[in-house]
Amino acid sequence: MKVLFLNGPNLNLLGLRQPEVYGRTSLAEIEARVRDRARKLKVAIDFRQSNLEGEIVAWIQQARGHFNVIVLNAAAYTHTSIALRDAIAASGVPTIEIHLSNVHAREEFRHKSLIAPVCCGQITGFGSNSYLLALEASINVTGA
Amino acid sequence: MKVLFLNGPNLNLLGLRQPEVYGRTSLAEIEARVRDRARKLKVAIDFRQSNLEGEIVAWIQQARGHFNVIVLNAAAYTHTSIALRDAIAASGVPTIEIHLSNVHAREEFRHKSLIAPVCCGQITGFGSNSYLLALEASINVTGA
Amino acid sequence: MKVLFLNGPNLNLLGLRQPEVYGRTSLAEIEARVRDRARKLKVAIDFRQSNLEGEIVAWIQQARGHFNVIVLNAAAYTHTSIALRDAIAASGVPTIEIHLSNVHAREEFRHKSLIAPVCCGQITGFGSNSYLLALEASINVTGA
Amino acid sequence: MKVLFLNGPNLNLLGLRQPEVYGRTSLAEIEARVRDRARKLKVAIDFRQSNLEGEIVAWIQQARGHFNVIVLNAAAYTHTSIALRDAIAASGVPTIEIHLSNVHAREEFRHKSLIAPVCCGQITGFGSNSYLLALEASINVTGA
Amino acid sequence: MKVLFLNGPNLNLLGLRQPEVYGRTSLAEIEARVRDRARKLKVAIDFRQSNLEGEIVAWIQQARGHFNVIVLNAAAYTHTSIALRDAIAASGVPTIEIHLSNVHAREEFRHKSLIAPVCCGQITGFGSNSYLLALEASINVTGA
Amino acid sequence: MKVLFLNGPNLNLLGLRQPEVYGRTSLAEIEARVRDRARKLKVAIDFRQSNLEGEIVAWIQQARGHFNVIVLNAAAYTHTSIALRDAIAASGVPTIEIHLSNVHAREEFRHKSLIAPVCCGQITGFGSNSYLLALEASINVTGA
Amino acid sequence: MKVLFLNGPNLNLLGLRQPEVYGRTSLAEIEARVRDRARKLKVAIDFRQSNLEGEIVAWIQQARGHFNVIVLNAAAYTHTSIALRDAIAASGVPTIEIHLSNVHAREEFRHKSLIAPVCCGQITGFGSNSYLLALEASINVTGA
Amino acid sequence: MKVLFLNGPNLNLLGLRQPEVYGRTSLAEIEARVRDRARKLKVAIDFRQSNLEGEIVAWIQQARGHFNVIVLNAAAYTHTSIALRDAIAASGVPTIEIHLSNVHAREEFRHKSLIAPVCCGQITGFGSNSYLLALEASINVTGA
Amino acid sequence: MKVLFLNGPNLNLLGLRQPEVYGRTSLAEIEARVRDRARKLKVAIDFRQSNLEGEIVAWIQQARGHFNVIVLNAAAYTHTSIALRDAIAASGVPTIEIHLSNVHAREEFRHKSLIAPVCCGQITGFGSNSYLLALEASINVTGA
Amino acid sequence: MKVLFLNGPNLNLLGLRQPEVYGRTSLAEIEARVRDRARKLKVAIDFRQSNLEGEIVAWIQQARGHFNVIVLNAAAYTHTSIALRDAIAASGVPTIEIHLSNVHAREEFRHKSLIAPVCCGQITGFGSNSYLLALEASINVTGA
Amino acid sequence: MKVLFLNGPNLNLLGLRQPEVYGRTSLAEIEARVRDRARKLKVAIDFRQSNLEGEIVAWIQQARGHFNVIVLNAAAYTHTSIALRDAIAASGVPTIEIHLSNVHAREEFRHKSLIAPVCCGQITGFGSNSYLLALEASINVTGA
Amino acid sequence: MKVLFLNGPNLNLLGLRQPEVYGRTSLAEIEARVRDRARKLKVAIDFRQSNLEGEIVAWIQQARGHFNVIVLNAAAYTHTSIALRDAIAASGVPTIEIHLSNVHAREEFRHKSLIAPVCCGQITGFGSNSYLLALEASINVTGA
Repeated sequence: MKVLFLNGPNLNLLGLRQPEVYGRTSLAEIEARVRDRARKLKVAIDFRQSNLEGEIVAWIQQARGHFNVIVLNAAAYTHTSIALRDAIAASGVPTIEIHLSNVHAREEFRHKSLIAPVCCGQITGFGSNSYLLALEASINVTGA
Repeated sequence: MKVLFLNGPNLNLLGLRQPEVYGRTSLAEIEARVRDRARKLKVAIDFRQSNLEGEIVAWIQQARGHFNVIVLNAAAYTHTSIALRDAIAASGVPTIEIHLSNVHAREEFRHKSLIAPVCCGQITGFGSNSYLLALEASINVTGA
Repeated sequence: MKVLFLNGPNLNLLGLRQPEVYGRTSLAEIEARVRDRARKLKVAIDFRQSNLEGEIVAWIQQARGHFNVIVLNAAAYTHTSIALRDAIAASGVPTIEIHLSNVHAREEFRHKSLIAPVCCGQITGFGSNSYLLALEASINVTGA
Repeated sequence: MKVLFLNGPNLNLLGLRQPEVYGRTSLAEIEARVRDRARKLKVAIDFRQSNLEGEIVAWIQQARGHFNVIVLNAAAYTHTSIALRDAIAASGVPTIEIHLSNVHAREEFRHKSLIAPVCCGQITGFGSNSYLLALEASINVTGA
Repeated sequence: MKVLFLNGPNLNLLGLRQPEVYGRTSLAEIEARVRDRARKLKVAIDFRQSNLEGEIVAWIQQARGHFNVIVLNAAAYTHTSIALRDAIAASGVPTIEIHLSNVHAREEFRHKSLIAPVCCGQITGFGSNSYLLALEASINVTGA
Repeated sequence: MKVLFLNGPNLNLLGLRQPEVYGRTSLAEIEARVRDRARKLKVAIDFRQSNLEGEIVAWIQQARGHFNVIVLNAAAYTHTSIALRDAIAASGVPTIEIHLSNVHAREEFRHKSLIAPVCCGQITGFGSNSYLLALEASINVTGA
Repeated sequence: MKVLFLNGPNLNLLGLRQPEVYGRTSLAEIEARVRDRARKLKVAIDFRQSNLEGEIVAWIQQARGHFNVIVLNAAAYTHTSIALRDAIAASGVPTIEIHLSNVHAREEFRHKSLIAPVCCGQITGFGSNSYLLALEASINVTGA
Repeated sequence: MKVLFLNGPNLNLLGLRQPEVYGRTSLAEIEARVRDRARKLKVAIDFRQSNLEGEIVAWIQQARGHFNVIVLNAAAYTHTSIALRDAIAASGVPTIEIHLSNVHAREEFRHKSLIAPVCCGQITGFGSNSYLLALEASINVTGA
Repeated sequence: MKVLFLNGPNLNLLGLRQPEVYGRTSLAEIEARVRDRARKLKVAIDFRQSNLEGEIVAWIQQARGHFNVIVLNAAAYTHTSIALRDAIAASGVPTIEIHLSNVHAREEFRHKSLIAPVCCGQITGFGSNSYLLALEASINVTGA
Repeated sequence: MKVLFLNGPNLNLLGLRQPEVYGRTSLAEIEARVRDRARKLKVAIDFRQSNLEGEIVAWIQQARGHFNVIVLNAAAYTHTSIALRDAIAASGVPTIEIHLSNVHAREEFRHKSLIAPVCCGQITGFGSNSYLLALEASINVTGA
Repeated sequence: MKVLFLNGPNLNLLGLRQPEVYGRTSLAEIEARVRDRARKLKVAIDFRQSNLEGEIVAWIQQARGHFNVIVLNAAAYTHTSIALRDAIAASGVPTIEIHLSNVHAREEFRHKSLIAPVCCGQITGFGSNSYLLALEASINVTGA
Repeated sequence: MKVLFLNGPNLNLLGLRQPEVYGRTSLAEIEARVRDRARKLKVAIDFRQSNLEGEIVAWIQQARGHFNVIVLNAAAYTHTSIALRDAIAASGVPTIEIHLSNVHAREEFRHKSLIAPVCCGQITGFGSNSYLLALEASINVTGA
């Protein structure tokens, strides 16, 4: 059982800036929490971040055959990238969309997700716990 | 620690009809699974269903002081009820919005949630596991 | 052969008020005409009215196994209730949408029916004859 | 008592193509069924089809003084022809709009009828029975 | 002279929660103030609250013949209920729409009132004084 | 100097029906008034009506080289026909758009003219005088 | 306690024209009724009308320090003037928006008020009584 | 017989600037042409221009009882002024809307006229001849 | 192998007018080029033009069983005709949509094609070469 | 070299009110800063403010031949005045649009500028420095 | 004669996944077919794919002076990239837009192409033949 | 004092292509002019260009602590990149949005800036002078 965690643009700044929106935990700390929980659940994980839309597209393409589930925090690309959507649909790997903040309580343009219709589910608004919940959800998604 | 699970209109039919959309698990089976997991987590729960918008509004109002978290599957009222939204905002009890199916992959009118902006988070698309994930999320929401 | 006639909010006022819109026939008189015609056609009927969205939802749910066809004049809920729509889709009972007045010649918000896509057909604008036409249509719907 | 049945573009193909949408009955068979029922009801009918918008406009104009009711399946012109709408309004002959399929369950552009506001009523979604129901409805429309 | 005051969903929480939006006066205190002023004006009043759309619809229906004016704070149902609108239109009792807060300075979806076009007037944004002003307005409405 | 008057669908009914919208003058009487005035102005005219969009398209095409100005009352096709628009643009003959009634005071769908941007001017709302005013305008249009 | 009543464009015609919309009372008669009531309430008032957007802007600016409340019937400028809105926001004087007729039952473009979000409340649809109700409301607004 | 010609903002620049849009004739020359034609037709005229919305509103108000027809080139105010619309409706004087250029062939925001629905007719796109045609149309408008 | 080329309204004017939009080649010259190429490819063709929507509908209907592919330049009807769309869907003959000019670089209303979703492909913007490319594409379409 | 600075409605209140939006500098102080900088740059300036749309229109008209550049802070009229737009286009004097606050971070209705397309450039959001930057920009605009 | 074939995001997966949408031919096979045909036509080609928007932008920029035509299958970037559009416009190299599938028969967001207005033509829906048709079209585009 | 100048996609082509839109100055020449002026103002600058959205996101992130102000010409990404917006908001470095051309006079899709609400100000339409004006504005922005 292997899960690929992918993080989109600006998430490398987590914990350093705008804590009122995104919380005080850094991406490295989130990764540590996810690795810790994954160990207990005996799940192998990979954890990456990129600011480049095309690089995330490539990672999703390559996941096929190597990962059972993708957990994707696409950040800003959630709302603008049809390329990500097509990559998810083409990869055939079950994908869970997550967000740290409650995007529905923010600006209008963050209410529409282009990738949601091709993901199996969404977990939104629980801060870094969104990652842990997605990890647990992954087990059932693959079991299905 | 007490969590109130509220289920909106037509969810009493779960497992009986349209399994291609909502799965084959009945609401009673979901309740059993939730009770089982809650026992392990030492969380008290209450689990209710109503087809009446006003009754759900009343339940949310009365939750204050008796429950730490509400987990709400508002079903069709998700998209039409400002009354539910006002009740959540007024109750002051942290509320988690859940859905069995991936509403974003269905009809256009199911993409807009009127209650999302006043909930703390959403969990969507994991079938009956959406309830269990919300139960786990509840623990952290109250701890915050 | 059994047909369930369901009437939505304010239809209990029929014949008493706004005759220029809805005609001068009361709901009781319509019921009598329907019962009369049903007897001739050897069809059993049930005839109910409610102002409560959730109660109509429940009636539709319970129709399964007891009625061959539902004839539904959802009145105002036609345009606002996704809960009714979900109930019709879940019940699996063929449903005919009817209206007394020509809703397309009235206010803009009455032109959109949320339930139409899950009904098998609509009969609109023939006053109390809409009920009788639906009764006749029911026979063929079930025969199909 | 005379009723004019008018059929719009492509209805001459009925029964030959796309039976999953329009059924397997040809327009000639529908006409036969309508004639048969009309004979029993002692109603004279005329039954025509055209692919030309302007020809249908002319037929509606000429109906005045010769027919008591028009039953109109305008097909595609339902959604695009203001000329048909103006002809109906000008003719002064009560007109019933019918459709074979449930247009509300099909493409978005078939949900809007330009002629509905000037018709007295609509019957939609009952296949060839839509014609027979309209024939019965005609009797009451003229009697009003 | 009799005036019926009707209060919609969540107004039973007035004064208890969200005082920054709705003020600190409870619904009971508002009722007391209204009763006090009504006594001075020699107007009989009835004062009710419900979270059920259908129950408010019924109260409006029954007002006919028993009350000269309805003062209606429909709260959330203001923006979603065509059933209330139809009830007001059918009852024939002059109805005044009121709101505690200035709904036009709040969320976009609170700017549109479905009931306003069938009410005789609106009084919005004066807190509990909206009720007293409506009471005074009632006298002139009936005098008209 | 030659002017071609073209009349669209349903204008053959002028004076016979809906006089509250279109006045009591028949198309023949309008033609007579136009011929009378044209004689005084020493202008040759041709005056035609068709319910067929394609026939009017053809008349506009053929006007080139035979008429100095087209006066076009496209009636319902004003709002739906890109084919008429393309014909006017292609013909190169200056075209004046006219209407009997004030289309801007009628239904929303009559407010948009597809042909207006390719006409040199519009005259709207003066009943049969719209034709006479257009005849006078023609002289200056050609003089330009 | 001083209240400034400001009246926008065309209100100088009140009582003279369109009594079916605006009633039969002239602006002078309204002023007289307001003055009479103000005297009883021991409130000083000023009462002005202008057809010039910029003049009303100036009056609102100058109200600061001289009036406790502005009662503003902005008439047509209600729906088009951001300048009035900015003046109200800048003046800091509590402002009550009033209308004689029920603007929500009229044309679509009268449903949107640009000034409503910066006013403390609205009173709409009570004819000249809207002014008297606003006078009474003023006392509480200032008392707040 | 008296006709009032009113000209809106920037029309005092006619003939001086943007001749490619508005032609080379100055407003004074247009006035001279109108006066000349009016003399032949034995019609008295008044001819005014203002850049102030409120001043044009006042002129329209005062026309009542002094003029039989208003010919109004409202220029930019055509598309933004509800105050002008209300003034025309209140004045009761038949008003003809004119434009020099074909506004429908220009920017999108010039396609919508707020005053058109309360005018009796429009004449658009004939340059200074629009004024002369309106003068002729006036005679018939008053004769009606 | 037989291909039916159908040309919509105004295409009979090709090469005669508006060469800056549609080029200088006449429809006859295009037909000659198509015939020449078809001969080399050993494909039989038929080549027609009509300004009548209903006639083109009929030609599409009759193609079934006689042609392997339809190449359709629907011109203005591309954007307004649901009747053409229904005819294509009903005929079952693979249809290729073509345009001479790049419709996406022209007016907004030419960007939407009602027939595109029921065609197998589109070729747009290559002038008369659009016809030749469609001829070549036809061979593969039928071969599929 | 002469530059005309024009200020729209409510800018006479600058520095007195809403400093959180517009800053603490009065219009007189801004004028002083502009005059000071202009002296150093050897540019003559004129500096005016008006609440009247029509007066600003007139000033823009009269600028022609007397000023090389107009710097226009149209305030609220930016978003509602086509008259200002037409005046700028007609005057032929290069015009720079400025704003004190960042209008794009404020209400939706302030995001659209009607005058922007006819100005040569915009400077927005730098407080009173917007005026000084525009002064410098003026030199290059005229030099172009 | 040199033609540059550029392929956007996810096209490297062609033939491997979602054959029901994109067919079973891999991008390498398409390239081979294109090279084969190009050899016969004596056209030199270059054939590239990238998931990075910015890399495709750079390739388009560099095409100037090295290629006569660009054939661009921008895939998902077709609908979201203004940067690609600007690159095409700036490069000055004639560009043909192609798609494998009929994008007009798919999701709404695939109906709008941001690059279409700056391309010379589009070929859509012929699977890998779209590439060959574009190659043939290239010869005429350059010859023009 | 250090200012970072960032240039988005296709700006490396400046001066080489489309001079009618963007002018004849190359990006290198603009950089030289900016460096020259910066030297006089004793401001250190860095000047970069990229076609990659993700690379510009990274540069903005890294500016924190190294630059006092960012001057950003995001070009096409202005209208499509939420990632840039989030980077600006997260970096905390005051950012000035600039454009060479007057984007408001170009295509509709260039009128909306996604980054404007998180920038402190915009300077648009002054060609390469936009860069120099932004440099001067930077000094005051940092001083604030």
